[in-house]
Amino acid sequence: MWSYEPPLRAMRFVIDEVLDAPADWPRLPAHADFDADTAAAVIAEAGKFVSEVIAPINGAADLEGCKWTPDGKVTTPAGYRDAWRAYVDAGWPALACDADLGGQGLPLLLNAVLNEMLAAGNHGWTMYPGLLHGAYECIKAHASPALRERWLPGIVSGETLATMCLTEPQAGSDLGQVRTRAEPQADGSLRISGNKIFISGGEHDLTDNIVHLVLCRLPDAPAGSKGLSLALVPKLLDDGSRNALRCDGIEKKMGIKGSATCVMAFEGATGWLIGEPGRGLNAMFVMMNSARLHVAMQGLGHLEAATQNALRYVHERTQGKARPAPANGLAASMTVAPQRGGAAGDPIALHAPVRRILSRLQALAEGQRVLAYATAQWLDRAEQHPDAAEREKALGHVELMTPLLKAMLTENGFLGASDALQLWGGYGYVHEYGIEQTLRDSRIAMIYEGTNEIQALDLVQRKLLGDEGRRLGALLDEFAAEAAACRAASEACDRDALGTPVLREFATALEDAIVAFRAGAEELAQVARDDPGWPAAVAGDVLKAFGLVALAWGWARSARAAARHPGDAWYAQRIVIAGHGRDWLLPELRLRLELVRPCGRELPWLVKA
Amino acid sequence: MWSYEPPLRAMRFVIDEVLDAPADWPRLPAHADFDADTAAAVIAEAGKFVSEVIAPINGAADLEGCKWTPDGKVTTPAGYRDAWRAYVDAGWPALACDADLGGQGLPLLLNAVLNEMLAAGNHGWTMYPGLLHGAYECIKAHASPALRERWLPGIVSGETLATMCLTEPQAGSDLGQVRTRAEPQADGSLRISGNKIFISGGEHDLTDNIVHLVLCRLPDAPAGSKGLSLALVPKLLDDGSRNALRCDGIEKKMGIKGSATCVMAFEGATGWLIGEPGRGLNAMFVMMNSARLHVAMQGLGHLEAATQNALRYVHERTQGKARPAPANGLAASMTVAPQRGGAAGDPIALHAPVRRILSRLQALAEGQRVLAYATAQWLDRAEQHPDAAEREKALGHVELMTPLLKAMLTENGFLGASDALQLWGGYGYVHEYGIEQTLRDSRIAMIYEGTNEIQALDLVQRKLLGDEGRRLGALLDEFAAEAAACRAASEACDRDALGTPVLREFATALEDAIVAFRAGAEELAQVARDDPGWPAAVAGDVLKAFGLVALAWGWARSARAAARHPGDAWYAQRIVIAGHGRDWLLPELRLRLELVRPCGRELPWLVKA
Repeated sequence: MWSYEPPLRAMRFVIDEVLDAPADWPRLPAHADFDADTAAAVIAEAGKFVSEVIAPINGAADLEGCKWTPDGKVTTPAGYRDAWRAYVDAGWPALACDADLGGQGLPLLLNAVLNEMLAAGNHGWTMYPGLLHGAYECIKAHASPALRERWLPGIVSGETLATMCLTEPQAGSDLGQVRTRAEPQADGSLRISGNKIFISGGEHDLTDNIVHLVLCRLPDAPAGSKGLSLALVPKLLDDGSRNALRCDGIEKKMGIKGSATCVMAFEGATGWLIGEPGRGLNAMFVMMNSARLHVAMQGLGHLEAATQNALRYVHERTQGKARPAPANGLAASMTVAPQRGGAAGDPIALHAPVRRILSRLQALAEGQRVLAYATAQWLDRAEQHPDAAEREKALGHVELMTPLLKAMLTENGFLGASDALQLWGGYGYVHEYGIEQTLRDSRIAMIYEGTNEIQALDLVQRKLLGDEGRRLGALLDEFAAEAAACRAASEACDRDALGTPVLREFATALEDAIVAFRAGAEELAQVARDDPGWPAAVAGDVLKAFGLVALAWGWARSARAAARHPGDAWYAQRIVIAGHGRDWLLPELRLRLELVRPCGRELPWLVKA
Repeated sequence: MWSYEPPLRAMRFVIDEVLDAPADWPRLPAHADFDADTAAAVIAEAGKFVSEVIAPINGAADLEGCKWTPDGKVTTPAGYRDAWRAYVDAGWPALACDADLGGQGLPLLLNAVLNEMLAAGNHGWTMYPGLLHGAYECIKAHASPALRERWLPGIVSGETLATMCLTEPQAGSDLGQVRTRAEPQADGSLRISGNKIFISGGEHDLTDNIVHLVLCRLPDAPAGSKGLSLALVPKLLDDGSRNALRCDGIEKKMGIKGSATCVMAFEGATGWLIGEPGRGLNAMFVMMNSARLHVAMQGLGHLEAATQNALRYVHERTQGKARPAPANGLAASMTVAPQRGGAAGDPIALHAPVRRILSRLQALAEGQRVLAYATAQWLDRAEQHPDAAEREKALGHVELMTPLLKAMLTENGFLGASDALQLWGGYGYVHEYGIEQTLRDSRIAMIYEGTNEIQALDLVQRKLLGDEGRRLGALLDEFAAEAAACRAASEACDRDALGTPVLREFATALEDAIVAFRAGAEELAQVARDDPGWPAAVAGDVLKAFGLVALAWGWARSARAAARHPGDAWYAQRIVIAGHGRDWLLPELRLRLELVRPCGRELPWLVKA
């Protein structure tokens, strides 16, 4: 049956060997005492919590769902409350919070690893703490000292959970349409009135109090997004009374059924401004960027969960006689074929179409993990590096990678779950086997925190075309440095039985990809001058092309790190899997870049039937 | 909210104008009296039934599901039984059955149209009659006169429903593993014992009796698929007693929750042999090929339902200001942009990413409909044409198209539902809006009746490589004839403001696609001689490439038929949509053919973690 075991070895490989993150920490004052051993211990402990506490209650919670009663109360599925208590007792909410605010002060990279595990183990449960770190960042950066002092300790400890109240029925992707009103009171507080929808964890039974961060509009505020402010609105006031807000219902959803998605009514609730009037979106964006990386980790977690369950299943399930395997050269020599079965047929792992599907899933999971962790590493540098130029460069990388990861990792989480499901045949469609839940749960991540279409527009319009290619150039230089390193390593170990030709192929593939994408981006900028609407029409293709270039970089880095261990089967498997990505997935880059060029293509108007 | 209106005009356009099917009917003795007006009336009537009777109960049935009680009884959702009664009363089960067996004797093309509508309106409900026509074909072709006489009338009238009992826990894709036993009795009957799973409609409350077609093994039968026989096993015996079989439970599934997917136990049940001993798979395949086309129509139905609901929604939902539209030439001049909105923002139909998604859905829905109906037309010719050479040619086309359509249309049904869901944003994830049910329901079609991976293997190994390219050559000649016709029509209407350059582009794109695919298939046959395992590794890519060539043909045919009506906006929209497929979707052909060539690519062995 379905289970989730965090891939600790693969995670540590990326952190320690591919990214060499421990070498960063002594240079970052906030993490100077942190090291590889401590990181390994934290990850192992987190893995134990996820596989033993929250993964086992994932399937039952999907069937049970949340319960709402007309008095506005929400009951979460069996086991959720105990799991939350265990999470708080172990100090996980404080993982990446500043030490001087009661946190453990660990790098955001570790938080990203934790988030990958949590979503893979139980996405529904993970929704409750999902916005906690974002709320922490937002309050820390923008709230008054009094609000910070009052609310941050509870958020750091996990005694209080937090929500992000943005969406209203008429205001989804277009937050400028938000209507919720905030009226200033004589005591400096606000009275908040309005209706919010799709509020994850708007009401539940995990904590006594809940802090809502509410996007709202002060009197006489201008229309549109410039008139938005942000308010902190707690469920319980300090005198213990209920604030004037309630949960009017929960949604019946496709997945993440353990997460209460609430309709919230604010009816003159007491709140306090966070940040400047009219700068609510700005304050909220601190939270949203953090949330987007978190959502990307959900996609990666689902892909990993789908892949590891499928990998186990295809070795257990026997069906039919496999055809002779395609002729294999180097790759086959490095890994061992599964054993053939007897009268009951061969393990389906021997069938070529199964091998294609699973190799793709593995190549995506391992390549994307490099990109995601690298971005978290850059985020740590952007926040903590003592050198301003390093901070700026790292921030530029993060700004490009955030929309890419949010869109690409969530799409591959969903599509990967679907591809994996296929390997179970009819069993895949049955709840008991778990994979259909992964498919349903993973689907939401393509939508929330900005749909993947919005991410593509952000990448293309704000990031790629927004600074005349400055940030892109810097990131592609970083990628090119890896290609050079790969080529150099290939030369250096010329006689090695394992790595030589392989690394050279990774170097070439990455170099070609960088050249092609750079040319494509430059041409797009040209086209945009004459036809400013065109980039929006092809933003999704640009994002896919950019993702493939980034993956080519991730696969090359992974292969180069693994090639340092010739003759070791586990490392050899990493190179084989990265090589699958390079040979079978990267060719799509040319198609995507072809679609980005106008070439006489038009975009029809859609006529109502 | 979600609704389904059969696209009658688009359907009639394909039947009458694109395929000119009415010209066939006078040449087919069984349908000599049938004509375009009658076909239109039948389709309109079927559409009315689907949109008024079964589509309205689709959403509630998903929430309610089926109920099983330990006495083996299954209760279907509210309204299912009444809808079945209405369906039978209107004579729909008999639509394509022979007139001399009580049927209406209509072309299978009409049955395909009916199946598209039924699945689009309510896939769960449609599962009950889903295998009826296949059972009819199987019994008609293989059963003894006595069995035919006893059971066919009830199946034709719909008084009795039918199942296909193949799968056992250890025997999914590999039917050679089937263990269910059949012991011959002195009276010529069989005693059937064994367990079957995933039996759609194995038990329900729609009809009194149910006829099970059971794959089983006679004593001393050889191992593997050559030892399989087929038995007819009714739920009720002719003396009114219950046969020794029961439903031991129903599956909790991802979708099609109104359909009871049963675990069936046969415990010495009385049955009768259909066809020869050891030829069960052969008899079953009659049913299975019919079922595969039916499943393809489910995929098309889901895509159509998703597309038409999305098309309506994107004109209603306002959000944000749309960027200036990409410069448009011919296409924009033929269709009209939606009206801009006011302060509440523009209809999202104006946003370029939305237009990309919906244009793709429309191009696939319209192109695939041409392919599906053309295949049904060929099936009618294969069965009814007086000229043996015509029958053989048509059968060759059907044999190639069946695995393609089953795999491509079901995959695009699911992926199309997911793409459409994205347009609703968060609402798409909520049950109330319907599209998430379409996504869940559509997923099963990629699995049952042979997974899509099995279809790809069938296409490549049995069909493309199985006859030295004979059937492929004949079909590509058919495609090439359309390219020539397109080019000729383009010349003929040189001065026409609408069609000329467009048709020439369709001709060129189709010619290029045919040349490229022919070369790819020839090279694959070469490679297969040295490396017989390679085709299985790339079967999925071959299928996708073949599908794109076929779509290029469908889009060209559709455009040529529409170009006969210059200046008419409805027809112009067909050309624009087909042009979108040609310009934005067809480029993937080159990628797929590139992946089919070995080029040093390898396929890793998957190592257990």
